[in-house]
Amino acid sequence: MRRPLAAEALGAFFLFATVVGSGIMAERLSGGNVAVALLGNSVATGAMLYVLITMLGPISGAHFNPAVTLVMWQRNDLTAKAALAYMVVQVAGGIMGVWMTHLMFDEAILQLSDKTRTGLGQWTGECIATFGLVLTILGTLRTRPQAVPVSVALYIVAAYWFTSSTSFANPAITIARSLSDSFAGISPADVAPFIAAQLLGAMSALLLAKQMLEPSDLEQ
Amino acid sequence: MRRPLAAEALGAFFLFATVVGSGIMAERLSGGNVAVALLGNSVATGAMLYVLITMLGPISGAHFNPAVTLVMWQRNDLTAKAALAYMVVQVAGGIMGVWMTHLMFDEAILQLSDKTRTGLGQWTGECIATFGLVLTILGTLRTRPQAVPVSVALYIVAAYWFTSSTSFANPAITIARSLSDSFAGISPADVAPFIAAQLLGAMSALLLAKQMLEPSDLEQ
Amino acid sequence: MRRPLAAEALGAFFLFATVVGSGIMAERLSGGNVAVALLGNSVATGAMLYVLITMLGPISGAHFNPAVTLVMWQRNDLTAKAALAYMVVQVAGGIMGVWMTHLMFDEAILQLSDKTRTGLGQWTGECIATFGLVLTILGTLRTRPQAVPVSVALYIVAAYWFTSSTSFANPAITIARSLSDSFAGISPADVAPFIAAQLLGAMSALLLAKQMLEPSDLEQ
Amino acid sequence: MRRPLAAEALGAFFLFATVVGSGIMAERLSGGNVAVALLGNSVATGAMLYVLITMLGPISGAHFNPAVTLVMWQRNDLTAKAALAYMVVQVAGGIMGVWMTHLMFDEAILQLSDKTRTGLGQWTGECIATFGLVLTILGTLRTRPQAVPVSVALYIVAAYWFTSSTSFANPAITIARSLSDSFAGISPADVAPFIAAQLLGAMSALLLAKQMLEPSDLEQ
Repeated sequence: MRRPLAAEALGAFFLFATVVGSGIMAERLSGGNVAVALLGNSVATGAMLYVLITMLGPISGAHFNPAVTLVMWQRNDLTAKAALAYMVVQVAGGIMGVWMTHLMFDEAILQLSDKTRTGLGQWTGECIATFGLVLTILGTLRTRPQAVPVSVALYIVAAYWFTSSTSFANPAITIARSLSDSFAGISPADVAPFIAAQLLGAMSALLLAKQMLEPSDLEQ
Repeated sequence: MRRPLAAEALGAFFLFATVVGSGIMAERLSGGNVAVALLGNSVATGAMLYVLITMLGPISGAHFNPAVTLVMWQRNDLTAKAALAYMVVQVAGGIMGVWMTHLMFDEAILQLSDKTRTGLGQWTGECIATFGLVLTILGTLRTRPQAVPVSVALYIVAAYWFTSSTSFANPAITIARSLSDSFAGISPADVAPFIAAQLLGAMSALLLAKQMLEPSDLEQ
Repeated sequence: MRRPLAAEALGAFFLFATVVGSGIMAERLSGGNVAVALLGNSVATGAMLYVLITMLGPISGAHFNPAVTLVMWQRNDLTAKAALAYMVVQVAGGIMGVWMTHLMFDEAILQLSDKTRTGLGQWTGECIATFGLVLTILGTLRTRPQAVPVSVALYIVAAYWFTSSTSFANPAITIARSLSDSFAGISPADVAPFIAAQLLGAMSALLLAKQMLEPSDLEQ
Repeated sequence: MRRPLAAEALGAFFLFATVVGSGIMAERLSGGNVAVALLGNSVATGAMLYVLITMLGPISGAHFNPAVTLVMWQRNDLTAKAALAYMVVQVAGGIMGVWMTHLMFDEAILQLSDKTRTGLGQWTGECIATFGLVLTILGTLRTRPQAVPVSVALYIVAAYWFTSSTSFANPAITIARSLSDSFAGISPADVAPFIAAQLLGAMSALLLAKQMLEPSDLEQ
């Protein structure tokens, strides 16, 4: 158990550092062209996701995301106790990644974001984004498990662009991003509804996957 | 049959949401630099195509496109009745995706595009774009079937850039995009000739593939 | 022989249409930001290369390039007569692709470029670009043949950026691009030294590959 | 031994030429939009890394990086004498690549950079960047060795964006980049602390990998 937890912490550390760090870099360099900033941000995030899932998947499953851990617990892939430990280290490792990023970019370590992200549109975005993420994971595990790292990475690249909220799709990263007053930030006041929308999306995907992706499908 | 149809609807939902949503996002953020907008739009679309074809291919064949379904029916890969049902759910699922995207971006759900896309150049573009898409599918199925998801995704990325129409190459998406007054839109009056050009391209590719890609080729 | 030649013609048609078409699209949309135009141009070209080599490689070897055909003839992979026929259809198919692109973009079909591309720096660029391309093909065929489509595509993406000439690396495409007065064009007067530099680079790579990549290497 | 050394020299030549050349190209074309320049620079570097590691990995291990060679020597993958020879040809081949790039771009061959890159933030960046690079190599070798070329390439794409120093992560390239007064340059006075930070990161990753990635993990 020690090693899967270290893998989840390490993965969240690098993933959240990439999300926040590439956001800071992109914002500083893009001179106000936010579409270029989002290109850098999305390409960097997708690239790091592939690297981390490929390397750490065989050790911990490479969740880095409490919504995914909840789904896997529902599927009896891990115990309630393990799921809880996973979530704790995801949040803790991820926050360390954000703080290390602030150190790298010569910013104050402790920050709070004041970026407002709210409203029905953005909540729908988070719900759809997490629905699609969980469906991608469960569906690809069924049909082509060795493609999961590529599929998850590319799904997130697309979701940064097609959802109005730029697709957080991860309760731990939502918490961690509230601690960075930068491109990727979210005001602490807006965190709770984002997480609620993410969990709704994740659970809906789990239900749909059970209906649609049963083994009998593939045996036709 | 219920599950393949659900897969086609779900795939069209996410694919068309990605095309329209990333177009809206790119246009809003790019400050008038349309090349940057097309980069975001094309990368997001290609990424989502890979994800959906990998996940849903084993269930329904992952057409999401009536021109592809017609070609597969001509090759006796599915019955006329199934082909018709495929096309209905592709259009219906895709329109749902466009409407959901409008909801996410806080826009009116029901819209009609007024973006003019017409003329011999653009029709040639659609014919070539669909010709190349169908050829890529049939040719890659023959030579390296496991590469179909990557090849289709990358073909569309390229086709967004090298065809004058930015490559709709899909009658269902042409209809759905007429219902969005945004970056990816097309005026309803311009839909019919686009679809005619697409079907001409698709049928030409089917003929060429029969000539050029016969098994005897590969056995040499 | 009829089918390999058709594959070479078809591949050159789509490859050269992509190079010229994405250049026209990128230039029209980028509002003078040439780095963004080169991003679109290089991503589209690399994407199409992967698609075409994957699909047509098993039929013709997927050269689309007289410099590559010459190297393969030197290695006795095809006869002198076949090599000559390959080169003829590469040039003819590629020019058709350029003309079709002009039709798509509502431009005059017949054009001559007046874009000057000359000087020791650019010739060195073409020599290095083609040297690296041929080395990539021969080296990857030895160590991981199934990676050739990805490696060639990514090599060209990189070479568009790191060589001063943006890496034509192909005598047929050099000729075809002299017939397009657009982003990707080259003045007819500058074609011959480009081709000479490309052939010098290709032959140097063939020599080095014989020295460095002998089977004994891999058996260590 | 002659061939592995030639492979290391050749790989460093093309890798460093790509880093410096794409930087010059991107800076010249981007009209001051540095985020677009970094996109071109990072995509070209990642693409070339994949090509070189795929082609040359079976011959030399494809280090191109003294920090990686040191780690491999610590793991007894090569002798002290071989490691030293590797480092010499990495630096020499890489500097040749930088000089050839200056020739291609019609610049003075011999240059010294005057770009200041210093401070705790950037040193932390280099330490984290190299830590992640070595962890990616060792971790991916364990879990999915055939994914190493993709993982290293994508790690560097991400690291260009999420580290404050844009991730040199390589003592040889740090030296070579001090000889180019361009986008990718670094003042000679700032080289030593960068290399110290890189070696610290590399050694930390080696220690962590021993703890975390032991075979027993994978046998659970």
